[in-house]
Amino acid sequence: MKPHFNRAVIYGVGLLGGSLGIALRRNKMAREVVGLGRSEERLRVAREMGAVGEIATEPGKALAGADAIFICLPPRLIREEFANIAPHVAPGAFVTDVGSVKRAIIEAGERDLPTGALFIGSHPMAGSEKSGVESAMADLYADAACVVTPTERTPPEALSTAVSFWRELGSRVIVASPERHDELLASISHLPHLAASSLVETLFGGGDATHMFRAIAGNGFRDTTRIAAGDAGLWEEIFSENSAPLLQSLDRMIENLRTWRELLSRDEARAQIRERLAKAAAHRRDLGDSGKRNDD
Amino acid sequence: MKPHFNRAVIYGVGLLGGSLGIALRRNKMAREVVGLGRSEERLRVAREMGAVGEIATEPGKALAGADAIFICLPPRLIREEFANIAPHVAPGAFVTDVGSVKRAIIEAGERDLPTGALFIGSHPMAGSEKSGVESAMADLYADAACVVTPTERTPPEALSTAVSFWRELGSRVIVASPERHDELLASISHLPHLAASSLVETLFGGGDATHMFRAIAGNGFRDTTRIAAGDAGLWEEIFSENSAPLLQSLDRMIENLRTWRELLSRDEARAQIRERLAKAAAHRRDLGDSGKRNDD
Repeated sequence: MKPHFNRAVIYGVGLLGGSLGIALRRNKMAREVVGLGRSEERLRVAREMGAVGEIATEPGKALAGADAIFICLPPRLIREEFANIAPHVAPGAFVTDVGSVKRAIIEAGERDLPTGALFIGSHPMAGSEKSGVESAMADLYADAACVVTPTERTPPEALSTAVSFWRELGSRVIVASPERHDELLASISHLPHLAASSLVETLFGGGDATHMFRAIAGNGFRDTTRIAAGDAGLWEEIFSENSAPLLQSLDRMIENLRTWRELLSRDEARAQIRERLAKAAAHRRDLGDSGKRNDD
Repeated sequence: MKPHFNRAVIYGVGLLGGSLGIALRRNKMAREVVGLGRSEERLRVAREMGAVGEIATEPGKALAGADAIFICLPPRLIREEFANIAPHVAPGAFVTDVGSVKRAIIEAGERDLPTGALFIGSHPMAGSEKSGVESAMADLYADAACVVTPTERTPPEALSTAVSFWRELGSRVIVASPERHDELLASISHLPHLAASSLVETLFGGGDATHMFRAIAGNGFRDTTRIAAGDAGLWEEIFSENSAPLLQSLDRMIENLRTWRELLSRDEARAQIRERLAKAAAHRRDLGDSGKRNDD
């Protein structure tokens, strides 16, 4: 069933929040869509783009009468803001966030939000190395995976609303615990980002070959490192908020690269090198080509 | 000046050789374009596609009267085939190859080809994770970087012909010694391929999360690992033929990842993490977006 809200508040009108607002309004899923944020200038841009109809810089003003609250801030700020909005969250209001890490956020939300709130975490794997409301678009969430992360404390109605909501926006919904989400994302998203940044650092971190690298770099290098151009502040937060699972994934990759090191040192390992490359190539081909624009 | 050949032979009609043939014929840079190879079936496909006008499976037959020879085989085979074609290479014939590693190939060519041949190595950074003459296209080399690799023994006329030739096809020509080429490519191409394969292996190498990774993987993971889908046989040869420079690059990356490991373990390193990510992001943004289809 298509969820319909009376007053939906989007806290944080960047790429994700802005796109959510556009989609909510276009799909007529809320009577009012309100943008809440600290920068009035950004809120005005969001309103001009049609992402929100009303804007506010005071949580109390924005949240009065709200039956849906979407927190679209960077991870650390989401975690910190639950306590600030809590006094204004009405019983029965649906509350979710779009943070890329979940355990730390869900713990804070379940601790700080009033018991009557229908709170559940979401992680729509939408976005790109672009950011800002200027890049917002109605179909950002279409065909994107979205992980919703219930716990033992999640009201069943929060789960069903979240599932229906993201499905209505065209997302493929996956249900996993916050801990499982963080482990999976450490491997499929945070480690690749770290590897991409590490590749760029390894090449461009100094030395005299920089101009030659620029002249020679092809699409192979560009694609492999594209995500390293992403917002450094956001990714520092993701790394720090999910450091334990990320360290585990990183250790596995370092171990794997050391095996490669050993293989490449031995002339007689050619068949083994070929076999490993072939297996990796088969796994990668199974995944298929990149879709439109969604990262993770 | 636009080079013009009487009889140009393309030894190996895959993606690179086929595209070269199409470009030579379309640009009217050779009176005859001959495909030489071992599989008559593939040669027929190349002829049907218009990549070559004449086909041959015997070097002696193909090379008689040839004034240009383009060796478009995998690296190890290029290295081994110089001795086989040498008896049929006419004095003054322009000879080049398109191998992705250069030192080992150039050493073999300078040792095995007759002194009168105008031999020089080329590495057009064109191609993709696709292979085979079926994927050949006229503009594969347009806007691609192409490294030509003269040595002390290279006849000046070979260098000038190579530079003019690749420029005529629209490539950006870069001149570097074979050794320098191999060092640069180890960092900008071979290491990224290894990192992409390692990421895929680290995630899909076993364990029960494979189906979840498939469900969740976004464009970030797909782009970062796209090149890992490339031809395993070709990449084993590239890795093995360029193992010393690749090992050096790999060691730098492992060292870099260990620094990351240490930073991620410390709560107080957040500012440093952010700064490093920001520097890498700036370097990556300088490189710009991926162009059409050329890898390296």
